[in-house]
Amino acid sequence: MGVFDQKDFLGCCGSTKFAKEMVLSGPFSNYQQAVEAARDIWFNKVDVNGWLEAFAAHPKIGESPSHSQKTKSSSSAQWSEGEQSTALASATDSSFQELIEWNARYLQKFGIVFLIFASGRTTLEILAEMKKRYVNRPIVELEIAAQEQMKITELRLSKLFSLQKDASSEAKTDN
Amino acid sequence: MGVFDQKDFLGCCGSTKFAKEMVLSGPFSNYQQAVEAARDIWFNKVDVNGWLEAFAAHPKIGESPSHSQKTKSSSSAQWSEGEQSTALASATDSSFQELIEWNARYLQKFGIVFLIFASGRTTLEILAEMKKRYVNRPIVELEIAAQEQMKITELRLSKLFSLQKDASSEAKTDN
Repeated sequence: MGVFDQKDFLGCCGSTKFAKEMVLSGPFSNYQQAVEAARDIWFNKVDVNGWLEAFAAHPKIGESPSHSQKTKSSSSAQWSEGEQSTALASATDSSFQELIEWNARYLQKFGIVFLIFASGRTTLEILAEMKKRYVNRPIVELEIAAQEQMKITELRLSKLFSLQKDASSEAKTDN
Repeated sequence: MGVFDQKDFLGCCGSTKFAKEMVLSGPFSNYQQAVEAARDIWFNKVDVNGWLEAFAAHPKIGESPSHSQKTKSSSSAQWSEGEQSTALASATDSSFQELIEWNARYLQKFGIVFLIFASGRTTLEILAEMKKRYVNRPIVELEIAAQEQMKITELRLSKLFSLQKDASSEAKTDN
Protein backbone atom coordinates (compact mmCIF):
# COMPACT_ATOMS: atom_id res chain seq x y z
CA MET A 1 0.00 0.00 0.00
CA GLY A 2 1.45 3.38 -1.01
CA VAL A 3 0.70 6.04 1.59
CA PHE A 4 2.66 9.14 0.71
CA ASP A 5 2.27 12.82 1.47
CA GLN A 6 2.36 15.93 -0.70
CA LYS A 7 6.11 16.38 -0.17
CA ASP A 8 6.80 12.85 -1.45
CA PHE A 9 4.89 13.54 -4.66
CA LEU A 10 6.48 16.96 -5.05
CA GLY A 11 9.80 15.15 -5.10
CA CYS A 12 8.54 13.12 -8.10
CA CYS A 13 7.17 16.12 -10.00
CA GLY A 14 7.55 19.74 -8.89
CA SER A 15 3.99 20.90 -9.66
CA THR A 16 2.06 21.75 -6.48
CA LYS A 17 -1.23 20.93 -8.19
CA PHE A 18 0.13 17.52 -9.22
CA ALA A 19 1.24 16.73 -5.66
CA LYS A 20 -2.07 17.83 -4.14
CA GLU A 21 -4.13 15.83 -6.64
CA MET A 22 -1.98 12.73 -6.04
CA VAL A 23 -2.71 12.94 -2.32
CA LEU A 24 -6.45 13.28 -3.08
CA SER A 25 -6.33 10.29 -5.47
CA GLY A 26 -4.43 8.01 -3.06
CA PRO A 27 -3.67 5.89 -1.21
CA PHE A 28 -2.64 3.57 -4.05
CA SER A 29 -2.62 -0.18 -3.64
CA ASN A 30 0.40 -0.51 -5.95
CA TYR A 31 2.84 1.32 -8.20
CA GLN A 32 0.80 0.73 -11.37
CA GLN A 33 -2.26 2.38 -9.84
CA ALA A 34 -0.19 5.39 -8.78
CA VAL A 35 1.25 5.75 -12.29
CA GLU A 36 -2.20 5.69 -13.88
CA ALA A 37 -3.40 8.42 -11.52
CA ALA A 38 -0.23 10.43 -12.12
CA ARG A 39 -0.67 10.30 -15.91
CA ASP A 40 -4.28 11.43 -15.72
CA ILE A 41 -3.44 14.29 -13.36
CA TRP A 42 -0.35 15.44 -15.26
CA PHE A 43 -1.85 15.42 -18.77
CA ASN A 44 -5.50 16.29 -18.03
CA LYS A 45 -5.60 18.36 -14.86
CA VAL A 46 -2.32 20.22 -14.45
CA ASP A 47 -2.40 23.37 -16.61
CA VAL A 48 0.47 25.04 -18.43
CA ASN A 49 1.46 27.04 -15.34
CA GLY A 50 1.80 23.78 -13.39
CA TRP A 51 3.92 22.29 -16.18
CA LEU A 52 6.23 25.32 -16.07
CA GLU A 53 6.43 25.07 -12.28
CA ALA A 54 7.50 21.41 -12.55
CA PHE A 55 10.06 22.13 -15.28
CA ALA A 56 11.58 24.96 -13.22
CA ALA A 57 12.19 22.53 -10.33
CA HIS A 58 14.82 20.70 -12.44
CA PRO A 59 18.47 21.67 -12.47
CA LYS A 60 19.74 22.22 -16.01
CA ILE A 61 21.37 19.06 -17.43
CA GLY A 62 25.01 18.93 -16.34
CA GLU A 63 24.57 21.59 -13.70
CA SER A 64 24.23 21.11 -9.97
CA PRO A 65 20.89 22.08 -8.48
CA SER A 66 20.95 25.66 -7.30
CA HIS A 67 20.48 26.53 -3.67
CA SER A 68 16.92 27.74 -4.27
CA GLN A 69 16.02 24.53 -6.11
CA LYS A 70 17.47 22.45 -3.28
CA THR A 71 15.40 24.37 -0.76
CA LYS A 72 12.21 24.18 -2.83
CA SER A 73 12.20 20.53 -3.71
CA SER A 74 15.23 18.87 -2.22
CA SER A 75 14.52 15.26 -3.12
CA SER A 76 13.65 16.16 -6.73
CA ALA A 77 16.94 17.99 -7.16
CA GLN A 78 18.95 15.22 -5.49
CA TRP A 79 17.34 12.54 -7.61
CA SER A 80 18.34 14.47 -10.73
CA GLU A 81 21.97 13.97 -9.78
CA GLY A 82 21.49 10.20 -9.73
CA GLU A 83 19.52 10.19 -12.99
CA GLN A 84 22.21 12.22 -14.76
CA SER A 85 25.07 10.02 -13.50
CA THR A 86 25.61 8.11 -16.80
CA ALA A 87 25.73 11.32 -18.77
CA LEU A 88 28.15 12.93 -16.36
CA ALA A 89 30.42 9.86 -16.21
CA SER A 90 30.60 9.72 -20.02
CA ALA A 91 31.19 13.43 -20.58
CA THR A 92 34.50 14.52 -22.05
CA ASP A 93 35.49 18.12 -21.46
CA SER A 94 34.52 19.19 -24.97
CA SER A 95 31.16 17.38 -25.10
CA PHE A 96 30.36 18.72 -21.67
CA GLN A 97 31.17 22.24 -22.84
CA GLU A 98 28.96 21.76 -25.91
CA LEU A 99 26.14 20.52 -23.68
CA ILE A 100 26.34 23.68 -21.57
CA GLU A 101 26.28 25.86 -24.71
CA TRP A 102 23.30 24.06 -26.28
CA ASN A 103 21.47 24.22 -22.96
CA ALA A 104 21.79 27.99 -23.03
CA ARG A 105 20.60 28.16 -26.67
CA TYR A 106 17.67 25.90 -25.85
CA LEU A 107 16.63 27.99 -22.84
CA GLN A 108 16.95 31.14 -24.95
CA LYS A 109 14.63 29.78 -27.67
CA PHE A 110 12.05 27.93 -25.59
CA GLY A 111 12.06 29.74 -22.23
CA ILE A 112 12.18 26.38 -20.41
CA VAL A 113 15.08 24.09 -19.42
CA PHE A 114 15.83 21.18 -21.75
CA LEU A 115 14.07 18.19 -20.20
CA ILE A 116 14.99 14.63 -21.07
CA PHE A 117 14.67 11.29 -19.34
CA ALA A 118 18.43 11.01 -18.92
CA SER A 119 18.76 7.68 -17.11
CA GLY A 120 21.30 5.48 -18.91
CA ARG A 121 21.99 7.98 -21.70
CA THR A 122 25.46 9.26 -22.53
CA THR A 123 26.28 12.93 -22.99
CA LEU A 124 26.62 12.47 -26.75
CA GLU A 125 23.18 10.87 -26.98
CA ILE A 126 21.64 13.71 -24.98
CA LEU A 127 23.45 16.29 -27.11
CA ALA A 128 22.21 14.67 -30.35
CA GLU A 129 18.65 14.65 -29.01
CA MET A 130 18.90 18.30 -27.97
CA LYS A 131 20.07 19.37 -31.45
CA LYS A 132 17.26 17.37 -33.05
CA ARG A 133 14.63 18.90 -30.78
CA TYR A 134 16.00 22.44 -31.10
CA VAL A 135 14.33 22.93 -34.51
CA ASN A 136 10.85 22.25 -33.09
CA ARG A 137 8.16 24.86 -32.63
CA PRO A 138 7.87 25.99 -28.97
CA ILE A 139 4.43 24.36 -28.51
CA VAL A 140 5.73 21.01 -29.82
CA GLU A 141 8.72 21.18 -27.53
CA LEU A 142 6.47 22.03 -24.57
CA GLU A 143 4.53 18.82 -25.13
CA ILE A 144 7.70 16.72 -25.53
CA ALA A 145 9.06 18.21 -22.30
CA ALA A 146 5.82 17.22 -20.54
CA GLN A 147 6.17 13.64 -21.84
CA GLU A 148 9.79 13.46 -20.66
CA GLN A 149 8.71 14.84 -17.28
CA MET A 150 6.16 12.02 -17.03
CA LYS A 151 8.89 9.39 -17.64
CA ILE A 152 10.99 11.01 -14.90
CA THR A 153 7.96 11.08 -12.59
CA GLU A 154 7.31 7.37 -13.20
CA LEU A 155 10.89 6.44 -12.34
CA ARG A 156 10.70 8.49 -9.15
CA LEU A 157 7.35 6.99 -8.18
CA SER A 158 8.89 3.53 -8.54
CA LYS A 159 11.71 4.64 -6.22
CA LEU A 160 9.14 5.88 -3.68
CA PHE A 161 7.38 2.51 -3.72
CA SER A 162 10.60 0.50 -3.41
CA LEU A 163 11.87 2.74 -0.59
CA GLN A 164 8.62 2.12 1.25
CA LYS A 165 8.92 -1.63 0.65
CA ASP A 166 12.46 -1.59 2.07
CA ALA A 167 11.30 0.39 5.07
CA SER A 168 8.44 -2.03 5.69
CA SER A 169 10.78 -5.09 5.41
CA GLU A 170 13.12 -3.46 7.92
CA ALA A 171 10.20 -2.80 10.24
CA LYS A 172 9.30 -6.47 10.05
CA THR A 173 12.91 -7.53 10.73
CA ASP A 174 12.93 -5.26 13.77
CA ASN A 175 9.96 -7.09 15.27
CA MET B 1 4.25 50.99 -46.66
CA GLY B 2 3.68 49.94 -43.05
CA VAL B 3 6.09 51.66 -40.69
CA PHE B 4 5.04 50.91 -37.13
CA ASP B 5 6.80 50.86 -33.80
CA GLN B 6 6.92 48.33 -30.98
CA LYS B 7 3.98 49.94 -29.19
CA ASP B 8 1.79 49.59 -32.31
CA PHE B 9 2.52 45.86 -32.51
CA LEU B 10 2.07 45.41 -28.77
CA GLY B 11 -1.46 46.75 -29.29
CA CYS B 12 -2.06 43.90 -31.79
CA CYS B 13 -0.59 41.18 -29.57
CA GLY B 14 0.61 41.70 -26.01
CA SER B 15 3.82 39.65 -26.23
CA THR B 16 6.93 41.84 -25.96
CA LYS B 17 8.96 39.34 -27.99
CA PHE B 18 6.31 39.42 -30.74
CA ALA B 19 6.37 43.22 -30.88
CA LYS B 20 10.17 43.39 -30.97
CA GLU B 21 10.45 40.75 -33.70
CA MET B 22 7.81 42.53 -35.78
CA VAL B 23 9.85 45.73 -35.66
CA LEU B 24 12.96 43.76 -36.70
CA SER B 25 11.06 42.09 -39.59
CA GLY B 26 9.56 45.34 -40.90
CA PRO B 27 8.88 47.67 -42.51
CA PHE B 28 6.23 45.77 -44.45
CA SER B 29 5.17 46.82 -47.94
CA ASN B 30 1.58 45.69 -47.30
CA TYR B 31 -0.80 44.03 -44.83
CA GLN B 32 -0.33 40.53 -46.26
CA GLN B 33 3.43 40.70 -45.74
CA ALA B 34 2.92 41.83 -42.14
CA VAL B 35 0.51 38.95 -41.47
CA GLU B 36 2.96 36.39 -42.85
CA ALA B 37 5.72 37.73 -40.61
CA ALA B 38 3.35 37.84 -37.64
CA ARG B 39 2.33 34.18 -38.11
CA ASP B 40 5.93 33.01 -38.34
CA ILE B 41 6.93 34.98 -35.25
CA TRP B 42 3.91 34.01 -33.16
CA PHE B 43 3.96 30.25 -33.89
CA ASN B 44 7.70 29.63 -34.36
CA LYS B 45 9.58 32.19 -32.30
CA VAL B 46 7.43 33.30 -29.36
CA ASP B 47 7.73 30.70 -26.56
CA VAL B 48 5.08 29.63 -24.08
CA ASN B 49 5.95 32.49 -21.70
CA GLY B 50 5.32 34.97 -24.52
CA TRP B 51 1.99 33.31 -25.29
CA LEU B 52 0.95 33.61 -21.64
CA GLU B 53 2.05 37.27 -21.61
CA ALA B 54 -0.13 37.98 -24.65
CA PHE B 55 -3.14 36.12 -23.19
CA ALA B 56 -2.83 38.04 -19.92
CA ALA B 57 -3.11 41.36 -21.82
CA HIS B 58 -6.75 40.54 -22.71
CA PRO B 59 -9.65 41.49 -20.49
CA LYS B 60 -11.87 38.52 -19.70
CA ILE B 61 -14.81 38.27 -22.14
CA GLY B 62 -17.65 40.46 -20.91
CA GLU B 63 -15.48 42.32 -18.42
CA SER B 64 -13.98 45.77 -18.79
CA PRO B 65 -10.21 45.90 -19.02
CA SER B 66 -8.71 46.35 -15.57
CA HIS B 67 -6.69 49.42 -14.70
CA SER B 68 -3.41 47.50 -14.90
CA GLN B 69 -4.30 46.11 -18.34
CA LYS B 70 -5.19 49.57 -19.57
CA THR B 71 -1.84 50.86 -18.39
CA LYS B 72 0.13 47.96 -19.83
CA SER B 73 -1.33 47.81 -23.31
CA SER B 74 -3.95 50.46 -23.69
CA SER B 75 -4.81 50.06 -27.36
CA SER B 76 -5.07 46.26 -27.04
CA ALA B 77 -7.55 46.60 -24.18
CA GLN B 78 -9.57 49.29 -25.94
CA TRP B 79 -9.76 47.27 -29.14
CA SER B 80 -11.15 44.36 -27.14
CA GLU B 81 -14.16 46.49 -26.27
CA GLY B 82 -14.91 47.05 -29.95
CA GLU B 83 -14.36 43.38 -30.85
CA GLN B 84 -16.74 42.23 -28.11
CA SER B 85 -19.48 44.70 -29.04
CA THR B 86 -21.76 42.15 -30.81
CA ALA B 87 -21.56 39.77 -27.87
CA LEU B 88 -22.31 42.52 -25.39
CA ALA B 89 -25.21 43.91 -27.41
CA SER B 90 -26.80 40.45 -27.69
CA ALA B 91 -26.34 39.46 -24.04
CA THR B 92 -29.43 38.95 -21.93
CA ASP B 93 -28.97 39.17 -18.19
CA SER B 94 -29.03 35.40 -17.73
CA SER B 95 -26.70 34.55 -20.62
CA PHE B 96 -24.33 37.26 -19.46
CA GLN B 97 -24.36 35.79 -15.96
CA GLU B 98 -23.67 32.33 -17.37
CA LEU B 99 -20.79 33.71 -19.41
CA ILE B 100 -19.21 35.17 -16.26
CA GLU B 101 -19.59 31.85 -14.45
CA TRP B 102 -18.10 29.76 -17.26
CA ASN B 103 -15.25 32.23 -17.58
CA ALA B 104 -14.36 31.60 -13.95
CA ARG B 105 -14.56 27.81 -14.43
CA TYR B 106 -12.42 28.03 -17.54
CA LEU B 107 -9.77 30.13 -15.79
CA GLN B 108 -9.80 27.72 -12.84
CA LYS B 109 -9.17 24.70 -15.09
CA PHE B 110 -6.74 26.13 -17.64
CA GLY B 111 -4.98 28.95 -15.77
CA ILE B 112 -5.49 31.27 -18.76
CA VAL B 113 -8.40 33.50 -19.80
CA PHE B 114 -10.83 32.10 -22.39
CA LEU B 115 -9.68 33.51 -25.71
CA ILE B 116 -11.92 33.62 -28.75
CA PHE B 117 -12.07 35.70 -31.88
CA ALA B 118 -15.30 37.35 -30.78
CA SER B 119 -15.99 39.73 -33.67
CA GLY B 120 -19.56 39.26 -34.90
CA ARG B 121 -20.39 36.44 -32.48
CA THR B 122 -23.31 36.54 -30.09
CA THR B 123 -23.05 35.72 -26.40
CA LEU B 124 -24.85 32.41 -26.92
CA GLU B 125 -22.42 31.39 -29.65
CA ILE B 126 -19.46 32.25 -27.43
CA LEU B 127 -20.99 30.40 -24.51
CA ALA B 128 -21.58 27.28 -26.63
CA GLU B 129 -17.97 27.39 -27.84
CA MET B 130 -16.67 27.79 -24.29
CA LYS B 131 -18.60 24.73 -23.08
CA LYS B 132 -17.33 22.71 -26.04
CA ARG B 133 -13.73 23.71 -25.41
CA TYR B 134 -13.93 23.22 -21.65
CA VAL B 135 -13.53 19.42 -21.95
CA ASN B 136 -10.18 19.77 -23.76
CA ARG B 137 -6.81 18.88 -22.25
CA PRO B 138 -4.90 22.00 -21.10
CA ILE B 139 -2.23 21.62 -23.83
CA VAL B 140 -4.90 21.40 -26.56
CA GLU B 141 -6.65 24.46 -25.20
CA LEU B 142 -3.35 26.35 -25.06
CA GLU B 143 -2.85 25.78 -28.79
CA ILE B 144 -6.45 26.77 -29.63
CA ALA B 145 -6.02 29.96 -27.60
CA ALA B 146 -2.85 30.74 -29.58
CA GLN B 147 -4.76 30.27 -32.86
CA GLU B 148 -7.58 32.54 -31.67
CA GLN B 149 -4.97 35.12 -30.59
CA MET B 150 -3.53 35.02 -34.12
CA LYS B 151 -6.97 35.78 -35.63
CA ILE B 152 -7.32 38.72 -33.24
CA THR B 153 -3.81 39.90 -34.13
CA GLU B 154 -4.62 39.76 -37.86
CA LEU B 155 -7.74 41.88 -37.40
CA ARG B 156 -5.79 44.43 -35.38
CA LEU B 157 -2.97 44.52 -37.92
CA SER B 158 -5.54 45.28 -40.63
CA LYS B 159 -6.83 48.15 -38.46
CA LEU B 160 -3.27 49.47 -38.08
CA PHE B 161 -2.80 49.47 -41.86
CA SER B 162 -6.14 51.11 -42.58
CA LEU B 163 -5.52 53.78 -39.90
CA GLN B 164 -2.19 54.54 -41.53
CA LYS B 165 -3.84 54.72 -44.97
CA ASP B 166 -6.42 57.19 -43.62
CA ALA B 167 -3.67 59.27 -42.04
CA SER B 168 -1.69 59.33 -45.26
CA SER B 169 -4.78 60.36 -47.34
CA GLU B 170 -5.38 63.21 -44.90
CA ALA B 171 -1.76 64.27 -45.18
CA LYS B 172 -2.14 64.41 -48.99
CA THR B 173 -5.33 66.48 -48.71
CA ASP B 174 -3.49 68.92 -46.51
CA ASN B 175 -0.87 69.58 -49.20
